[in-house]
Amino acid sequence: MTATLKDVAELAGVSVKTVSNVVNGYAFVRAENRLKVEAALAQTGYRPNIGARNLRRGRTGFLALVVPDLGIPYFGELAGLVITAAQSSGWNVLIEQTQGERDRELESLGSLGPHFVDGAIVSPEALVAEDVGQVPAGFPVVLLGEQTAGFDLDRVGIDNVAAARAATQHLIDLGRTRIAMIGDNPRRATAQLRLQGYRQALTEAGLPVLDDLVAPADSFHRRDGVLAMRGLLDRLDGERPDAVFCCNDLLAVGALHEAVVSGLRVPEDIAVVGFDGSDEARYSLPPLSTVAPDKGAIATSAVRLISERVSRRDGAGYEDVQAPFVLETRQSTTGITER
Amino acid sequence: MTATLKDVAELAGVSVKTVSNVVNGYAFVRAENRLKVEAALAQTGYRPNIGARNLRRGRTGFLALVVPDLGIPYFGELAGLVITAAQSSGWNVLIEQTQGERDRELESLGSLGPHFVDGAIVSPEALVAEDVGQVPAGFPVVLLGEQTAGFDLDRVGIDNVAAARAATQHLIDLGRTRIAMIGDNPRRATAQLRLQGYRQALTEAGLPVLDDLVAPADSFHRRDGVLAMRGLLDRLDGERPDAVFCCNDLLAVGALHEAVVSGLRVPEDIAVVGFDGSDEARYSLPPLSTVAPDKGAIATSAVRLISERVSRRDGAGYEDVQAPFVLETRQSTTGITER
Repeated sequence: MTATLKDVAELAGVSVKTVSNVVNGYAFVRAENRLKVEAALAQTGYRPNIGARNLRRGRTGFLALVVPDLGIPYFGELAGLVITAAQSSGWNVLIEQTQGERDRELESLGSLGPHFVDGAIVSPEALVAEDVGQVPAGFPVVLLGEQTAGFDLDRVGIDNVAAARAATQHLIDLGRTRIAMIGDNPRRATAQLRLQGYRQALTEAGLPVLDDLVAPADSFHRRDGVLAMRGLLDRLDGERPDAVFCCNDLLAVGALHEAVVSGLRVPEDIAVVGFDGSDEARYSLPPLSTVAPDKGAIATSAVRLISERVSRRDGAGYEDVQAPFVLETRQSTTGITER
Repeated sequence: MTATLKDVAELAGVSVKTVSNVVNGYAFVRAENRLKVEAALAQTGYRPNIGARNLRRGRTGFLALVVPDLGIPYFGELAGLVITAAQSSGWNVLIEQTQGERDRELESLGSLGPHFVDGAIVSPEALVAEDVGQVPAGFPVVLLGEQTAGFDLDRVGIDNVAAARAATQHLIDLGRTRIAMIGDNPRRATAQLRLQGYRQALTEAGLPVLDDLVAPADSFHRRDGVLAMRGLLDRLDGERPDAVFCCNDLLAVGALHEAVVSGLRVPEDIAVVGFDGSDEARYSLPPLSTVAPDKGAIATSAVRLISERVSRRDGAGYEDVQAPFVLETRQSTTGITER
C-alpha cells in the first residue's frame, strides 16, 4: 500500500501542508518539524507523485534520447553515458530508436513536445538542415554528432573532418600510398565529413584521390565492412589498397575479418584503421587502431546544454561544443604487438 | 505554437467535447463530425496531452526497463529489441542502469511504482529471491534472464543450465578433456547456473570436475576475459586447459585475445566457446562458437507479459517463459573456416 501525505503527517504529528513543504524542498520549515517529517517519510516509504508535481511546475521531468540503434555498440555505450549523466541531474530518460532513417528521425522530432518530455537529445544520421523546422517552436533540443551548419540548435560533436584527416595522415606517415576508405554514404552527413577529411589528407600529401578506392556502405555494421572489403579486393585485384580508413569500428572489424580470411596479412599487406574508440577494437586480433571521440565529454556536455536550455526556454545563443578525440594506434596499422 | 482542443474545435466547427471524444477514441461520435475533426486534427498538428490523459486513466503510459549497462553489447541489443517491441504496443520506455549491483537493483525495484511507470521489465544480475519484497505490492514487474525459483513474478529467460551443458558437451564431443570455465561469480545467479551446466556435462562424460579449471570474473567485460585466461595459463603452466567455456561473448573475446597473444593456436591448442550469440562473435578472428539465446523472442515475450499484467492488475498465475537457444559452432572450436 502506497503511503499518502496524510499518513506521513499523522505519523509525524504535523500538518499535511508541512509535509508537503518538506517534500517539495521549500525552505521555510522549522528544523524540528523537518526532522519529524523526514523520519516519518523514511518510515512510511512515502514517494511523491512526481508526475503530478511536474505537471504543476509545467514540466514532465523526462528527457527523450533519440538514437539510431542501441544494438550498435557506439550508441549503446553513448546512451549509457548520457542516461547516467542525465539521471545525476535529476532527469528520467526515454529512448527512441530511428535506425538512422530520415523518416523516423523526422517523426521523432515532430512528435516531441512539451506534453511528453521537457527536451530531447537527438543523434541524427540522415536529417538535413531544413528538417529542423519540424521541431515544435521553442522546444529544447540538443543535437549529437552531426554537422551544425544550418542547424539552429545546440550541438555536441567532434571535428569529423579533422579526425578523419588524422586517421588518414597516420596511414600516410606509415608509408602507405594506396589508401582506401570504407563507409561512403550520401545520406549520412558524418560519412560525408569523414570522406572530406580523408580526401584532404591525401591531397595535402600529394597522393591521388581515386574514386575506385572509396567503398560505399549502406549501413555501418560488421557485415557491411566485410562486403565493402570484398568489393575493394575483387574490383582492384592486382592493384589492391595497402591501407583502409573505415568510417566506424564495426566496418573496420568486418574489413579486417575479410582481409584476413582472404589471406592478407594485417598490417603488412593492408593496414586498417577504424573510428569510435570502441572496446572491441582494443581486443580484436590484431588490435585495431581507431579514432576515439571522448564519449564521456559528449554525454556530460549534452546533458548540461539541455538542462540549461530547459531552464532558460529561450531560442538564443546556441552553443556548438566540440568534444576532443584521440587517435589510438595499435597493431592493425603499426604492426607493433603490445601487451 | 501548439494547437489546443479549442483550435481544433473552431476549425472543425464542432464543440470541444466532440473533439475530445474523437481524440480519446470514444465510440459515439457522428461519422460526419468525426471526419471534420480528423481533418482539423491533421491540419493543426494537434497532439493530445498524453501525460494528463494517462493521469485521468490512472496510467502513465510508461514502462521502465532496468538493465545492468547499455554499453554491454548483449544489453544494448536486448534493450533495443525490447524498446522496439514496447513501442509497437504503445508504450514509452524509460531506462535505468544498475551496473549489475544488488544495491542499485534494489533501489530500482524500490523506487518503481505507479506514480512513475505502469510496470517494469527488469534484468537483474545480483538480486536474490527475498529482494522481491521491495517491489511495491501489486506493481507489475517482469524479470528477464534470471533463475525464477522463489521469485513470485513473471519471468522470461532461457534454460541456462541446459545451455551451458550444451556448450560444454560440444567441447567434449570434439575430444577435449581439460575443459576450463571462465566467469564464475558467486553474486550472479546466471553464472551459478552456467557453472552448474558445465559441471553436469563433465560429470555425465566421466571427466573430473576440477576447481583449478574454474576461473572467476568480477565483471563480464573483455578485459576480465583477458585476466581470467592469463590466470589459467599462469597457474596451470604445463597442464593448461585444452578448451574453455566462457560465460559470455565478451569474456570469450578477451580469453581468445589472451590465448593468441600468448602464442597458442585456437582451436588446435585451446578451443573457445562463448555465450550470447553476439554479432561480434561471428566476425572475430577466428570466429567464435557461442550459445545464442533467441533475443527477439525474449523481448516480445517480456512486452506481452508486462502488457497483460498491467491490464489485469492481479497477482495470480505468474508465467515463466523459456525462450529457445541454439549453439552456433564456428572455427574457434571446430577449426573449420567458413566463408
